[in-house]
Amino acid sequence: MATTTNKQIIFPEYVSGFPKESDLNITTTTIDLKLPEGSTSVLVKNLYLSCDPYMRICMGKPDPLANSLVPPYITGEPIVGLGVSKVIDSGHPDYKKGDLLWGLVGWEEYTVITLTPYSHFKINHTDVPLSYYTGLLGMPGMTAYAGFYEVCSPKKGETVFVSAASGAVGQLVGQFAKMMGCYVVGSAGSKEKVDLLKEKFGFDEAFNYKEEQDLSSSLKRCFPEGIDIYFENVGGKMLDAVLVNMKSQGRIAVCGMISQYNLVDTEGVHNLPTILYKRIKIQGFRVFDFYDKYSKFLDFVLPHIREGNITYIEDITEGLESGPSALLGLFHGKNVGKQLFVVARE
Amino acid sequence: MATTTNKQIIFPEYVSGFPKESDLNITTTTIDLKLPEGSTSVLVKNLYLSCDPYMRICMGKPDPLANSLVPPYITGEPIVGLGVSKVIDSGHPDYKKGDLLWGLVGWEEYTVITLTPYSHFKINHTDVPLSYYTGLLGMPGMTAYAGFYEVCSPKKGETVFVSAASGAVGQLVGQFAKMMGCYVVGSAGSKEKVDLLKEKFGFDEAFNYKEEQDLSSSLKRCFPEGIDIYFENVGGKMLDAVLVNMKSQGRIAVCGMISQYNLVDTEGVHNLPTILYKRIKIQGFRVFDFYDKYSKFLDFVLPHIREGNITYIEDITEGLESGPSALLGLFHGKNVGKQLFVVARE
Repeated sequence: MATTTNKQIIFPEYVSGFPKESDLNITTTTIDLKLPEGSTSVLVKNLYLSCDPYMRICMGKPDPLANSLVPPYITGEPIVGLGVSKVIDSGHPDYKKGDLLWGLVGWEEYTVITLTPYSHFKINHTDVPLSYYTGLLGMPGMTAYAGFYEVCSPKKGETVFVSAASGAVGQLVGQFAKMMGCYVVGSAGSKEKVDLLKEKFGFDEAFNYKEEQDLSSSLKRCFPEGIDIYFENVGGKMLDAVLVNMKSQGRIAVCGMISQYNLVDTEGVHNLPTILYKRIKIQGFRVFDFYDKYSKFLDFVLPHIREGNITYIEDITEGLESGPSALLGLFHGKNVGKQLFVVARE
Repeated sequence: MATTTNKQIIFPEYVSGFPKESDLNITTTTIDLKLPEGSTSVLVKNLYLSCDPYMRICMGKPDPLANSLVPPYITGEPIVGLGVSKVIDSGHPDYKKGDLLWGLVGWEEYTVITLTPYSHFKINHTDVPLSYYTGLLGMPGMTAYAGFYEVCSPKKGETVFVSAASGAVGQLVGQFAKMMGCYVVGSAGSKEKVDLLKEKFGFDEAFNYKEEQDLSSSLKRCFPEGIDIYFENVGGKMLDAVLVNMKSQGRIAVCGMISQYNLVDTEGVHNLPTILYKRIKIQGFRVFDFYDKYSKFLDFVLPHIREGNITYIEDITEGLESGPSALLGLFHGKNVGKQLFVVARE
């Protein structure tokens, strides 16, 4: 039997506050590169692994509320995340050796996958960067697509605000909104990101929230007539400032609240009476509920990529060992664009 | 020309914090009981005047946000509110002397009304108490109807929580929900009101929020499996407690936030990440947007009243002079049921 070493990033213990690198351990174990006779699993070699904000929720102490969105990590086991992988051996009729797929895998070199509905998608288009299947063509892309088109009910000419706008999801929401003829503004946490928003992604306006005295005034400056649609990625103070700048019958799609995940006590939001005054709709959603539209999404987005209508910025680090700092950097806004790391290139 | 005295309740100055009776002045002026030649207005004698929580918003300093829901009162002018009135003289083709109507009038004995779309509705059914047109058959009834059936998207068997549940709107939402086969719990601020909820309105459970140590635990006790629908009338701490008790894909209809109207600084709500975790929809609404369904509502609700399927509790005080304390009592929960006062009986 072909046995090889399998480097892993282990989740040792539940985290409170901002996670540190010491909260993740790197170990090496071994794995058989052949599935046992009769297995219906798929053995994959992991190529690209994805760092996503929701993973912080999985790192917190098990909590029925948060875990109704995503399950907690299991202590002593590898981190689980989304990745792009190559099939090494398969006991499943849908996959054969050499196939590429994206979906949930361990943070390790090799993973044995048990397939469940929508847990993994076969990659059929390889004329685009493979790494895109952790971002633009994977979960974040579907999140932007479903969140914007399905949850926000956008109309041509509407005004759209996106927070964490240069991130994996935000940069796409902004571009989708521009393609629809909306006026789009984004916030981000550095000058470099703000420049990207305006120069690469075509946002009409952008600001660095860390440099603004008063977020509500910043929004008023960018949206003198108010906001029709807010694509919410951060929560807390930004949500408070957005609420008082919403137009009547505005819509807020809650995709994430990254500013709150590392807080022991979440911030209080004060301007909720505005929901009443302005007849606002706020809707939380999870991308999993829209995965039945994935092939429709690919039909929509692949031509745009090929024709150069969509730009996607990735922040890629090298090697499994770079995973912990890449992930933790997300919570300090260190990433510029979609954060992922390379485990192997083929 | 027939001139008579016209007692009025004047709004002298914008209010901060809880309004006091001295914030409303009673004066007497005179009025001609005949409209000038060529007028298209309607002159009415006011019979029943309604006290509603939204009126506190009109009493606050003009604020573009709050006033996008309801306009501010004009200082030195009579309070404006909903009432049931009898036509004394009419220059409008839709109304003739002796007709009854409900809609916006001044807090005074006689008002000259300018009709605008949906500003007033003719009363065609008088086999039910006339005062009901300030409540069950007026704006609060339509609010309960539209808010519950249109905004909450209820389904048989779902769990429903109503705050301020014995109020003008809440008591109806609870009864509509029971008629649909939902499990219904209400909160109110006294033992008397809690008893009403269970004994008169058929709520499955009810609690006095002032006597509970921890609202979240109270809700957990009443909803061990969680809340599908929250009909929001109060905001603040109650909303925070509800959020963590919502079921996945639960719906919150924001009808009012009475606990916040008198606060100079609104309370912070901390559990908003639950909107994401549980994929919750929160929707603010105003009844005005649903007035085109008023006749459909009457077709639905009148038979239920006549057959005794719906109970409606009113808190009626006597005389125009009782208006200020009746209104202010709302903000301290003094009313038991729909608050109104009688100016004249015919």
